[in-house]
Amino acid sequence: MNARNKGFFSEETSVEVVTARNSGTKDARLKQVMEVITRKLHEAVKEIEPTQDEWFDAIIFLTKTGHMCTDWRQEFILLSDVLGVSMLVDAINNRKPSGASESTVLGPFHVADAPELPMGANICLDRKGEDMVISGRILDTEGKPVDGAVLDVWQANDEGFYDVQQKGIQPDFNLRGVFRTGADGRYWFRAVKPRFYPIPDDGPVGQLLEALDREPYRPAHLHFILKADGFATLVTHIFDPDDPYIDTDAVFGVKESLLAEFRKINDRKRAKELGFEDWFWEVEYDFVLARK
Amino acid sequence: MNARNKGFFSEETSVEVVTARNSGTKDARLKQVMEVITRKLHEAVKEIEPTQDEWFDAIIFLTKTGHMCTDWRQEFILLSDVLGVSMLVDAINNRKPSGASESTVLGPFHVADAPELPMGANICLDRKGEDMVISGRILDTEGKPVDGAVLDVWQANDEGFYDVQQKGIQPDFNLRGVFRTGADGRYWFRAVKPRFYPIPDDGPVGQLLEALDREPYRPAHLHFILKADGFATLVTHIFDPDDPYIDTDAVFGVKESLLAEFRKINDRKRAKELGFEDWFWEVEYDFVLARK
Repeated sequence: MNARNKGFFSEETSVEVVTARNSGTKDARLKQVMEVITRKLHEAVKEIEPTQDEWFDAIIFLTKTGHMCTDWRQEFILLSDVLGVSMLVDAINNRKPSGASESTVLGPFHVADAPELPMGANICLDRKGEDMVISGRILDTEGKPVDGAVLDVWQANDEGFYDVQQKGIQPDFNLRGVFRTGADGRYWFRAVKPRFYPIPDDGPVGQLLEALDREPYRPAHLHFILKADGFATLVTHIFDPDDPYIDTDAVFGVKESLLAEFRKINDRKRAKELGFEDWFWEVEYDFVLARK
Repeated sequence: MNARNKGFFSEETSVEVVTARNSGTKDARLKQVMEVITRKLHEAVKEIEPTQDEWFDAIIFLTKTGHMCTDWRQEFILLSDVLGVSMLVDAINNRKPSGASESTVLGPFHVADAPELPMGANICLDRKGEDMVISGRILDTEGKPVDGAVLDVWQANDEGFYDVQQKGIQPDFNLRGVFRTGADGRYWFRAVKPRFYPIPDDGPVGQLLEALDREPYRPAHLHFILKADGFATLVTHIFDPDDPYIDTDAVFGVKESLLAEFRKINDRKRAKELGFEDWFWEVEYDFVLARK
């Protein structure tokens, strides 16, 4: 009997037998990954003790999840999201030094070729929604401004949709922009207050959320990717802490340090200067990048 | 903060936060299952520490596995099989009292409406392959014969294919039959020696087996379902211990107690009596049913 054969399968020997069988691969990382997956999967099965019907229900759930996936819909990523796995992988891959801004999930709506805009530009091309101005600095962990940092921002509109979800309704590149800081590390631009929205919930993952009595909503947020030479790229959001779903983000993306203050400003003079009507929302938020 | 909100997500609190969110469901079993799945899944991710690319590779593997599933191909069951999960679920659901025959996986090729045949019938309708006679008793755990037990048998032919895989090539119901015992609990029928065959390996699961340097073969076997009033239904195989793949069944179905002896009989007189040519294979195997 060789190392790849630990005898016949039994409830007691199941992990050992399967892992021995997988031990012949020359791919050391695959071998390690399969060892952990086998062990944790068998532990889960032994603890759950599924009936044959429950096991088959799980097979059908996974099958339906696969069948829901197309070029424009990724139901397994949604499943990973609602189980907290996407955020966990993000956290593991983005452990930051103390003081650096925290990361959160990228999400499916980033577009690579959004236009670079001058500071102060209004990224809301159709002017629908409540006016908002957002500003702040991009700093290093010592509090010094980062020159030449690139801020890539995208957000849903005040109905909770991204431009790519409403082609022909919203203008192309609505609520998207790329900005580049100067020596002062400052950024500012105009937009509209984002709104909460549901993750796609008409598939198996939506049914699971319903069975779990969970909301499908993500609280209102803006997405950012921040890049600068010599710094680790930061993928993050800032959130509206007053959103009704701030404590129940369907994908667990919220972190305390990512809560920004959305202040309602009733100042007709400043509004006019900004090209707004009577009042607007103001957000100030500083990002801190970690050096590579 | 209520019981369903344990604060924001972090690497440290991930299991607690996700599980609290799922705690509102009224389905107590779903709640329990999700608690175990969340805990084991997060443990696995924390131990593996996948890169974002590895996480995405896993998403794509699951997606391809789903896309491979059709009405006649179940790639997630294959995945469950090659990870030992199907056999583990079988083992958990079929813990037998000492002395009772052990179960193994049902497999995808059972047909519900195979014909009931008289004892001794030859289930090989096209007479292709090496003749075989198989006999034995169906007993209770006290060694007493079971009257009126129903034995449902099916097997691959000597090329490793079931009739349903070769419609138009093999006769319908080839190598299938249902037999009913009398007061002596005895059964016997004629067939051909089965051959090893590969599980379907042209999909993602086949690619995984190849990456793991594993064989896709199942060793030669006959399938049985045994039913009798007052007894637990037994789903099992008997295997040829001399098969080249007996130690490496791709789905881990082999158990020591399911190894039968396939004896080659050179006895022209007995061969003639059985309607065979010069020689044949003989298998004797007793099944022991557990009372409900």
